[in-house]
Amino acid sequence: MAWVRDNIAAMKGYVPGEQPSDAGIIKLNTNENPYPPSPRVMEAIRAVTPDRLRRYPDPDANVFRQAAAKVHGISPEMIMATNGGDELLALLFRACVGEGDRVAFLNPAYSLYPVLSAMQAARPVALPYEINGGDWRLPEDIFKLNAKLLLIVNPNAPSGTLIDRDMLARVIGGFPGAVLIDEAYVDFAPTSALELVGQFANLILLRSLSKGYSLAGMRFGYGIARESFLRELYKVRDSYPCDAVAIAAARAAIEDQAYARGTWEKVLQERRCVTEQLRNMGFVVPRSHANFVLAQTPAGSDAERLYQRLKDRNILVRYFPQPRLADKLRITIGTPVQNGALLEAIGELAKEMLFRPHKDSA
Amino acid sequence: MAWVRDNIAAMKGYVPGEQPSDAGIIKLNTNENPYPPSPRVMEAIRAVTPDRLRRYPDPDANVFRQAAAKVHGISPEMIMATNGGDELLALLFRACVGEGDRVAFLNPAYSLYPVLSAMQAARPVALPYEINGGDWRLPEDIFKLNAKLLLIVNPNAPSGTLIDRDMLARVIGGFPGAVLIDEAYVDFAPTSALELVGQFANLILLRSLSKGYSLAGMRFGYGIARESFLRELYKVRDSYPCDAVAIAAARAAIEDQAYARGTWEKVLQERRCVTEQLRNMGFVVPRSHANFVLAQTPAGSDAERLYQRLKDRNILVRYFPQPRLADKLRITIGTPVQNGALLEAIGELAKEMLFRPHKDSA
Repeated sequence: MAWVRDNIAAMKGYVPGEQPSDAGIIKLNTNENPYPPSPRVMEAIRAVTPDRLRRYPDPDANVFRQAAAKVHGISPEMIMATNGGDELLALLFRACVGEGDRVAFLNPAYSLYPVLSAMQAARPVALPYEINGGDWRLPEDIFKLNAKLLLIVNPNAPSGTLIDRDMLARVIGGFPGAVLIDEAYVDFAPTSALELVGQFANLILLRSLSKGYSLAGMRFGYGIARESFLRELYKVRDSYPCDAVAIAAARAAIEDQAYARGTWEKVLQERRCVTEQLRNMGFVVPRSHANFVLAQTPAGSDAERLYQRLKDRNILVRYFPQPRLADKLRITIGTPVQNGALLEAIGELAKEMLFRPHKDSA
Repeated sequence: MAWVRDNIAAMKGYVPGEQPSDAGIIKLNTNENPYPPSPRVMEAIRAVTPDRLRRYPDPDANVFRQAAAKVHGISPEMIMATNGGDELLALLFRACVGEGDRVAFLNPAYSLYPVLSAMQAARPVALPYEINGGDWRLPEDIFKLNAKLLLIVNPNAPSGTLIDRDMLARVIGGFPGAVLIDEAYVDFAPTSALELVGQFANLILLRSLSKGYSLAGMRFGYGIARESFLRELYKVRDSYPCDAVAIAAARAAIEDQAYARGTWEKVLQERRCVTEQLRNMGFVVPRSHANFVLAQTPAGSDAERLYQRLKDRNILVRYFPQPRLADKLRITIGTPVQNGALLEAIGELAKEMLFRPHKDSA
């Protein structure tokens, strides 16, 4: 096809996690919140009138921006609403990264980053995490980096590990380009980089309502940055990225902090149990600050086979067939019943697959 | 901002039409359908469960694709759902247009095209329509064009004029790059380019549910092309462009053809009346095949002032302060009551502003 750019013809698209329609499946593969959204979200959706659908929505989703600004204690001008967090990433690449420009990200991190880089015909710079068992550290290279854009997921996916705020400040302060901190999972973590936005003009945070607010089906994310930075991103977006129903739902969701926090607390409690029990069965599990854990399967086992055997039992987790991840499974924290079923299945498969679930004193 | 690309820093973003929140305004400026969406759309939205919001949506919107394929008599694989028609345009630019590549479009046409071109640091080639009163023709240059992408709005916005299918086939067959026919307004026209998709591998059609199906607030569009062409576009899109509520709503809307057609017929009838009455008042109005008309104000009048005076009376139409359009207003066809109010106001302003509403024998 002569009309397709060479870099696009040569690239592969991103492959999202499986989204089976079978309701009988225990779905622990794409980090959804196991609890439904706030009842106020359902009320807000049902209150949308036919006339609201007929007319174009507010291009800037101002009612959402005001609600989110109140929650964060910042001005609405520092917030930009997007059609899911992924759209914010795409905007940032379009605004900052030209053909041949360098884009840096850690590895392993969100596997969409290299795909976005290929779309722009950019030069990806993958910085390997220093991994030592359950310990994931930033490589020294990150402090002497030159690129247009640096992306850091924090807490990281797929490891769940967290980089502390002082370390982030050191990285951002020393970097000549734009820095995105992808905080899609921050609702399950003890700290965020929010207070750094006032400090650094080159910093933008990504937030998402998919996980923390149980709205993966609604596609709603937002960026937090100085107004001058956001102004450049507004230039490269679609005119009406968020629809009228999504705006109403997202506003209701973020306004009901008490409900959302209730779901986070339940997830955190379960995360402790799942981590401990997996470790007891011989898995190496870094301490997670997200709503999933990355579990390295015990010596002598085969992670891909375990993934497959769990799938045969209608339990779906995420397996990444790539260097540094091929011996691990990423497991979303579900409800107590779902987690119980998973752990029981792993216990049984451990016997059957002859890997040794040994007892550690955690 | 050192991290922003030069072409982005230098460009201006697209400015969409005003979206006032005041319900008292007669809004004839952004081509919304004046009638509400099908009641089945509202039912579909209210039937969405909390669990459907909690989980990621179907990345491909398959229930919609199947419904639309049935309506068009094509296979679902030839349909790609997007977050509004604008997203399809953005995907097409990303897949086909690299830095310095040529992108061609007519002028005047959809004013987003030059903005998308600037985002890609591409070289825009604007082909001037040959305009003679109400007659808008393709320029001869279009048949000897070399570019990566050619965009034709048909029926055209803002003129409402239609290029016939044989002429389109000549253009597409002779063009070396990809051709997008933007059929956002095709529901109000007598013909479409649908049957040409089988004939040309480089052709893609854009469809939208914003106007024909009264869903501007929902953001739902789609592309129609051969599967091999769409495959390249899937690589450059977000993983989940359409949310679960939008997919359910769009499916219900397109399945209720009888309802939608009812709204189109009412708009067509009003379009005839509005055209005739504007012509009677001395405006030059090309024959429109869309849900709006482009009205050149009578000799001696000032289109911008008329736009402003209508706005003072809470009637909003679209004024484009740019060459070839600055003497015209684009007026969306509303309900009979809205159109009556508009025409009455214009009649009164004609006297007041001392331009001469003369009577022609249409």
